[in-house]
Amino acid sequence: MGMAERKHALNVKRSEDFSAWYQAVIQGAELAENASVRGCMVIKPYGFAIWERVQRLLDDKFKELGHVNAYFPMFIPVDLFEKEAEHVAGFAKEMAIVTHHRLEQQNGKLVPAGELETPLAVRPTSELIIGESMARWVKSYRDLPVLVNQWCNVVRWEMRTRMFLRTAEFLWQEGHTAHETEAEARAEATQMHEVYRWFILDVLKMFGIPGKKPDYDRFAGAVDTYTIECMMQDGKALQAATSHYLGQNFAKAVGIEFQGRDGSLNYAHTTSWGISTRIIGGLIMSHSDDDGLNLPSAVAPYHIIMIPMLKADNSQAVLDYCNKIKASLPRDVRAFLDTREFSPQNKKWDYVRKGVPLILEIGSNEVKSESVYFTKRLFLEKQSMSLNEFAKSVEQLIAAHDEMLKTHCEEACEKRINRDVSSLYEMRDFFRSNQNGFVIAKWAGKNDKLELLDDMSISIRCIPSLQSGAPGRCVLTGEEAATDAVFAKSD
Amino acid sequence: MGMAERKHALNVKRSEDFSAWYQAVIQGAELAENASVRGCMVIKPYGFAIWERVQRLLDDKFKELGHVNAYFPMFIPVDLFEKEAEHVAGFAKEMAIVTHHRLEQQNGKLVPAGELETPLAVRPTSELIIGESMARWVKSYRDLPVLVNQWCNVVRWEMRTRMFLRTAEFLWQEGHTAHETEAEARAEATQMHEVYRWFILDVLKMFGIPGKKPDYDRFAGAVDTYTIECMMQDGKALQAATSHYLGQNFAKAVGIEFQGRDGSLNYAHTTSWGISTRIIGGLIMSHSDDDGLNLPSAVAPYHIIMIPMLKADNSQAVLDYCNKIKASLPRDVRAFLDTREFSPQNKKWDYVRKGVPLILEIGSNEVKSESVYFTKRLFLEKQSMSLNEFAKSVEQLIAAHDEMLKTHCEEACEKRINRDVSSLYEMRDFFRSNQNGFVIAKWAGKNDKLELLDDMSISIRCIPSLQSGAPGRCVLTGEEAATDAVFAKSD
Repeated sequence: MGMAERKHALNVKRSEDFSAWYQAVIQGAELAENASVRGCMVIKPYGFAIWERVQRLLDDKFKELGHVNAYFPMFIPVDLFEKEAEHVAGFAKEMAIVTHHRLEQQNGKLVPAGELETPLAVRPTSELIIGESMARWVKSYRDLPVLVNQWCNVVRWEMRTRMFLRTAEFLWQEGHTAHETEAEARAEATQMHEVYRWFILDVLKMFGIPGKKPDYDRFAGAVDTYTIECMMQDGKALQAATSHYLGQNFAKAVGIEFQGRDGSLNYAHTTSWGISTRIIGGLIMSHSDDDGLNLPSAVAPYHIIMIPMLKADNSQAVLDYCNKIKASLPRDVRAFLDTREFSPQNKKWDYVRKGVPLILEIGSNEVKSESVYFTKRLFLEKQSMSLNEFAKSVEQLIAAHDEMLKTHCEEACEKRINRDVSSLYEMRDFFRSNQNGFVIAKWAGKNDKLELLDDMSISIRCIPSLQSGAPGRCVLTGEEAATDAVFAKSD
Repeated sequence: MGMAERKHALNVKRSEDFSAWYQAVIQGAELAENASVRGCMVIKPYGFAIWERVQRLLDDKFKELGHVNAYFPMFIPVDLFEKEAEHVAGFAKEMAIVTHHRLEQQNGKLVPAGELETPLAVRPTSELIIGESMARWVKSYRDLPVLVNQWCNVVRWEMRTRMFLRTAEFLWQEGHTAHETEAEARAEATQMHEVYRWFILDVLKMFGIPGKKPDYDRFAGAVDTYTIECMMQDGKALQAATSHYLGQNFAKAVGIEFQGRDGSLNYAHTTSWGISTRIIGGLIMSHSDDDGLNLPSAVAPYHIIMIPMLKADNSQAVLDYCNKIKASLPRDVRAFLDTREFSPQNKKWDYVRKGVPLILEIGSNEVKSESVYFTKRLFLEKQSMSLNEFAKSVEQLIAAHDEMLKTHCEEACEKRINRDVSSLYEMRDFFRSNQNGFVIAKWAGKNDKLELLDDMSISIRCIPSLQSGAPGRCVLTGEEAATDAVFAKSD
């Protein structure tokens, strides 16, 4: 007779239905919900608290590197879009268009009225409208670089939507910079790529491969696009943040021209870079398990939850002791005492689903022995400690949580990277095994055999920044090729 | 021979053309600019840095009071609006309406395509869409109160626009709460009214009168609306922030129903409250002068600017000394060393126009004598001090700046309050003198003679929270009336 498997906090497992499991994690942790508006989501307080921490950490880093925040209109006149041909072609099919500016009663129904002369697109991205401002701001090389960023909402009218990953409206930051020289602009794009690598791999403890997008898959209007391709627990790739060197394309489209050091007129070189609420989807699919969410401490709304086990005769003593625990913790540790009128058992599983790293259950026993009884979320291990010892080691416990989260994710992903594929046959074999994962194989950089990847539903995710340098043969053409590329399915 | 007046940093004076002066302050301080989109503005980095400080201070306060942030869709299906009749009537005339979801080439032009079944309004405010979520979240009295807030963009299609004061798109925060009882909801609305009073009067050092809106001028759908009516330097009133007790109106419209302590089903009582980027317009019109902006230190991007007076032979010594000054300042003092390649004189006037409280000019003399030469922005007084003394007294200098700003604004406004008006004749006399200002006079609270105010272009701004209690006669009807009301022109 096999060992009975314990019941999990979610009613669906990763291994059974990854997509349903993803929704169950979101619902169980109260991160978000679908809105009544097609394709839009509500980011609930617990989910938004994670996003606020993402914002704070990145915003501090951007400012440290000299960027300033600003705000630009979300409406873009349709004719402004036409100024950059590739750009408009890339976005025209998925833009929300404002055509009227009021509602009128007609036969007891509200209908759009006051038609606009020029329809307005709700921004899917802001290169053109921010470029227009830069064109006004920049007269001389002394006005450069311009290093601006905005945190805002954008809209891309997606047909198939999934919470956090693909919604009609989403939140992001978009950095936009203008520089005197190509070298400076390229250095900026590379620097911001590195910021995203740091944030996603080091702060969020996700697994990802930094690299450059193949030419045919660049941002619409860019010269080079850099990406972090993260691996999710279903072995698929998620593009987690991108940074673009835009050359002089947008500067020419909107006229960002300046007098150079030698008196000549030049177009600026621009960049743009962004990360969105999509990263929360990536975070979920990187670390969560069949009991719900797991969070790295840097973005966890709470590090510690205290659940008081109240009885008629001990309430005040237990609450006092909880407050004593809280007071004994280092200031940076985010601890929360949950006194709501729900059963302690329900609360505990709530916080397991919410991925709070340390879940404390405090009752009369703990008060008497001045101890702390807690569950470590990641592997649901239970432990007891004197309060004194707990207060002293709590930062270590949190650091250990982060370390385990990272190691666990990294090891699982590394196992799913196949570096031994040298032919299309082997590639098919790998992806048909239904294991998914990343194949790192040689690619000659030609675009004419890419359709061979279609029946496997895979694509070239990036050319990794870190190249092995070893010679080999292109998996598509069989030619000699030295360049490694990442092949994978994607969400 | 009269004393020649000194030249001012702006080319237009408050006393000559208030509206042109307002634009000149904005342009001179690089706060914002008009966008190519009709009625929309670009908030430039310096203006946005002020808004970021507004956000941080208020957000910390909201959280201290138990509120959490979340994010709700900016698109609201038109049929959802129809659920609250007063509400939709109040906003229908100024909403941006999305009717299509892509652009298509037709005869070489991009035109809207993919018509939506239900048109979407871009949120002018979010009571209904947030209420829909609350209806899902709230089942029992244990789920109450719900205390959420969001920082976002909203759109109201205004016909006459003015930067910060009235733009089609603007930024704000909107708090939305749901409570078990009327008393709790009323206490919340009052509490948030007090938070705004604290922020606008104590933090921003503006002058304003907290009070309640007359019934006919409430927020569309509210039971009571509380406001802070600030006085600008042209003597007009600016509604600076509002807090609403919404009764059960919205709860009934969207179904925020819960099981009460006695098992019965009840509708929640809700509130909403908001402050927008409009407050920056109010800040400008409260404190600026003919040399440009003045800022209270709490929201000033810099407290201190250091302008190095560089010559060929002293550059390194001056820059080193500037860094020494910076290092000697308390950590909370925001000091910035401006090393851009512009003339020191131009930089100085730039920072006067930007309202930096203390502007330091540092050259060889200061290095030699280890001293600091500075201009206090508010009255452009110049002063010299040893570095040692400056470092010790800098926080006092900043506090004195704030104190003077407050006193200066308060005294000027108090002078423009007329409490001696007891008839319509006297009211006309006051407002026709072209001085403007606030009249605090008795009002019987009846709405039938309000048209008498129209030819003076004035309105009842609020019923002050602080009432004199003295009996008198209503200025409109001549009846006996005990209630004070504020009468003024508004922007």
